[in-house]
Amino acid sequence: MKKILEETIRQFIPVREENSYKGNFGRLLFVGGNDQMGGAITLSASAALHAGAGLVTVASAPVNVHALHARMPEVMFLDMYDLDTLKDMIPSMDGIVIGPGLGRDSKSVDIAKTVFETVSEEQFLVVDGDAISIYVNEKLDHPVAELIFTPHLGEWKTLSGMGPDEEALEKNQEKRDQLDAIVVLKKGQSEVYFEDEVWQNISGNPSMATGGMGDTLAGMIGSFTAQFKTRKEGVLSAVFMHSQIANQLSETHYVTLPTLIIDEIPKLMKEYTKSI
Amino acid sequence: MKKILEETIRQFIPVREENSYKGNFGRLLFVGGNDQMGGAITLSASAALHAGAGLVTVASAPVNVHALHARMPEVMFLDMYDLDTLKDMIPSMDGIVIGPGLGRDSKSVDIAKTVFETVSEEQFLVVDGDAISIYVNEKLDHPVAELIFTPHLGEWKTLSGMGPDEEALEKNQEKRDQLDAIVVLKKGQSEVYFEDEVWQNISGNPSMATGGMGDTLAGMIGSFTAQFKTRKEGVLSAVFMHSQIANQLSETHYVTLPTLIIDEIPKLMKEYTKSI
Amino acid sequence: MKKILEETIRQFIPVREENSYKGNFGRLLFVGGNDQMGGAITLSASAALHAGAGLVTVASAPVNVHALHARMPEVMFLDMYDLDTLKDMIPSMDGIVIGPGLGRDSKSVDIAKTVFETVSEEQFLVVDGDAISIYVNEKLDHPVAELIFTPHLGEWKTLSGMGPDEEALEKNQEKRDQLDAIVVLKKGQSEVYFEDEVWQNISGNPSMATGGMGDTLAGMIGSFTAQFKTRKEGVLSAVFMHSQIANQLSETHYVTLPTLIIDEIPKLMKEYTKSI
Amino acid sequence: MKKILEETIRQFIPVREENSYKGNFGRLLFVGGNDQMGGAITLSASAALHAGAGLVTVASAPVNVHALHARMPEVMFLDMYDLDTLKDMIPSMDGIVIGPGLGRDSKSVDIAKTVFETVSEEQFLVVDGDAISIYVNEKLDHPVAELIFTPHLGEWKTLSGMGPDEEALEKNQEKRDQLDAIVVLKKGQSEVYFEDEVWQNISGNPSMATGGMGDTLAGMIGSFTAQFKTRKEGVLSAVFMHSQIANQLSETHYVTLPTLIIDEIPKLMKEYTKSI
Repeated sequence: MKKILEETIRQFIPVREENSYKGNFGRLLFVGGNDQMGGAITLSASAALHAGAGLVTVASAPVNVHALHARMPEVMFLDMYDLDTLKDMIPSMDGIVIGPGLGRDSKSVDIAKTVFETVSEEQFLVVDGDAISIYVNEKLDHPVAELIFTPHLGEWKTLSGMGPDEEALEKNQEKRDQLDAIVVLKKGQSEVYFEDEVWQNISGNPSMATGGMGDTLAGMIGSFTAQFKTRKEGVLSAVFMHSQIANQLSETHYVTLPTLIIDEIPKLMKEYTKSI
Repeated sequence: MKKILEETIRQFIPVREENSYKGNFGRLLFVGGNDQMGGAITLSASAALHAGAGLVTVASAPVNVHALHARMPEVMFLDMYDLDTLKDMIPSMDGIVIGPGLGRDSKSVDIAKTVFETVSEEQFLVVDGDAISIYVNEKLDHPVAELIFTPHLGEWKTLSGMGPDEEALEKNQEKRDQLDAIVVLKKGQSEVYFEDEVWQNISGNPSMATGGMGDTLAGMIGSFTAQFKTRKEGVLSAVFMHSQIANQLSETHYVTLPTLIIDEIPKLMKEYTKSI
Repeated sequence: MKKILEETIRQFIPVREENSYKGNFGRLLFVGGNDQMGGAITLSASAALHAGAGLVTVASAPVNVHALHARMPEVMFLDMYDLDTLKDMIPSMDGIVIGPGLGRDSKSVDIAKTVFETVSEEQFLVVDGDAISIYVNEKLDHPVAELIFTPHLGEWKTLSGMGPDEEALEKNQEKRDQLDAIVVLKKGQSEVYFEDEVWQNISGNPSMATGGMGDTLAGMIGSFTAQFKTRKEGVLSAVFMHSQIANQLSETHYVTLPTLIIDEIPKLMKEYTKSI
Repeated sequence: MKKILEETIRQFIPVREENSYKGNFGRLLFVGGNDQMGGAITLSASAALHAGAGLVTVASAPVNVHALHARMPEVMFLDMYDLDTLKDMIPSMDGIVIGPGLGRDSKSVDIAKTVFETVSEEQFLVVDGDAISIYVNEKLDHPVAELIFTPHLGEWKTLSGMGPDEEALEKNQEKRDQLDAIVVLKKGQSEVYFEDEVWQNISGNPSMATGGMGDTLAGMIGSFTAQFKTRKEGVLSAVFMHSQIANQLSETHYVTLPTLIIDEIPKLMKEYTKSI
């Protein structure tokens, strides 16, 4: 298992070409946020925006548009329960992040099915939170898009079907092969499973143990995946920098809230593109 | 009456263990905020979040979800008038804070009754503001949860049934015994009554005399109680640090608004965990 | 005409007594903000809150509660079209500010009439913006409360009935006598008319020529009037400090937006209470 | 093609006269923001406000009032679907910015038609985003107001009817003559076409390639056009300073979000008015 190190990640951050335009940095769709959990999708989309995604659209419950635009006038909004419009919107995207605050009721299931069935081979799909549960419970077919699952340990049990004490490097790799996906297994020291190798995040600290942290990471993963040279570089950089920002903030903060972390993303990205 | 001193409180702030997760730091439910007073429950929940609570859910009037999520996408929302869902939600919580902006009409009474009847022995319940009035006026039974009352002087008269000039250390202790609760008596120099001892807060200043300050304190009490080694350490630390932050801010601010105080909580907590 | 000088104002800021509570610093009601102009009453109430008012309630159009609480969870809300509740609320107040964004349609007129008829001799009433127009157009009786009018030059013509070129110190004084009110005449160098003397504000600069500045001043006047030793000291300090903050900000800002000014109020107040 | 240089722009920023009032700095109406894209018109209006516009009103979909006032209580709101009120409001304005987030459905077309037909010769009209498409698709008559088009390259093709590779300096000038308008052609190094000359913006960097950047620029153009000595000075200064702020922010930020840029406008304007 390789360790994710700062000197490696520093080299992954792409230097933007002159005369690039927003379309070069990813059109991303975020799907989630029901009537109770609109904050989750807001955090996720906000992380993506601050991480450089070119154009961010959020499909969520209508009640969430007010807070979303109060925090981020930069994003566009869509009623996620309007499945036809959702379906029409998907083909224009480079990637989709589904799950944060999505809920698991029948309406949420319909949304997930629509997204899973509509995505294409050229797109990537980050599957987080409730979307993982729906994928398993509804026995959905593997979508044709490139998949990135971001389960925490409990969700990984569900997704892999392993027993409580079975989780281990090799078993995880086997399961990843069956899933045919990148798997970001979130725990104390998160592990990232690719087809050919496994990486471990040794950054991070317990000030991050607070609600919304996973939603934030999922947003960063989506944003970096759309922008970076390879999927691998994008996912690894997101996992590392998310923790690294929390490490820096934790020098002065007992708890490092997601909204604080999000504001720091553009700064650490910039710092990493400067030569040392 | 013991005085709450900074050197004592510094030792109470727990150092978080590596590999902890958000569930370790408390699942808290905030109940309050009617159509007029949604800001009160927002302040309370925000204080709890910044004070390190692992997972914060707010049950409030539907109108309040917009401002709540605009300020704090990290929290989850619940319609407090949906009593069945409220009842279903309570068992998964470590503690509940009820009262800020709750109101006293019949719908508020129904909510308070639901919460008081549903809590269990393993949970703690912070009873603040309007929930104190409802508890007295409706002659509610003592709930089985551990109770923490946070009355200001006027509410204490109501709660204790004492006459205007009767309030005094021993009488307060007697009444606390009857209530079988921790009592945080908010006044110029707040007093905290436990079963075995009484503490006095000598921190604080008149810049704190502004609306929403009590809601903020109730949130900190809930958050610290869920995280600290003992109930006593949690409550005393909340009372002291709330005032201590106001003391620091008052060096540059004539009035120290709750929203300003809340932003400082993670910083003072961090400072206190560092060796001097 | 006396000039308002910094050394005078510094002595007006009251030093808060230990063991004071929020009731000592004024219960204020703000009435205004229709469907189009909700921002005006939000600015006014926000200025009052930051200027130290103990308890702020805003009566406004229902649509405005979201933005109000997103910006200021510290305040309470009331539907201003619910005249019965408005009437019930007024007696518990120390002062009322009416006018910012109120509008002039028949519903706004009904609100103004309700407020003007309900206030009592012990209260003060700041009449700003649209409430000035309604007072004149509807020929309302002089309310029994202490009146403070805050007209700009155009509104002063309406209020005084003077012709376009008639405005002059003595005429203004005469008219003030008839109005039996304190008059803050807002212009380049604002003038404040009391029963016994006239003061001129020589602070201020053209970076303040932006929307919402008058609403902000009205809020500061209400807040200071409730807290300061005399009405005169409160009104003069508000007029001066509002401009003085803009002067300080204008060293680094081409335009000094009301929201920026408001954040600085508690800091300048604190600075002025420190010995030089 | 002249290059826009900092030393030139510094001389364009007007020094505000003492005793000016908000009416001197432009009454501006912003029209746009449907149910999905309310953030776009919020950004545009916010840029105008921070760039010194005296009085800003936003006509938008009703759903957007909450986020708008949560971010900017300084502006007034109007339901853009209420065409009669929209029509009544226009004559009192100095200039109108139409297009950001407007949408292109039949209701949006009706709004655009109303604005185009109601503006007068004394007013200027900035036509951005969807309003450009509607202007072309609906073959609208050239309004009598002074026109400023702000197309990106794709919109310019539509507006000029040129083929994909035809765009070139002289052709652009010809087309500008036919349009009888100032044209701000947004691209890597934006070009500004006036009747008598063409300017090129050499400021800017790829951190600006993010959603909402064009909306922000349109707002600055509207604001400066209303305030500056000539249309030319206003438009050129907006184009340059928008990029220049992004250049400064990009020293510490990988992506320079519009909301960050907007906050800096009053500071750079102030800096430029100071002698070097």
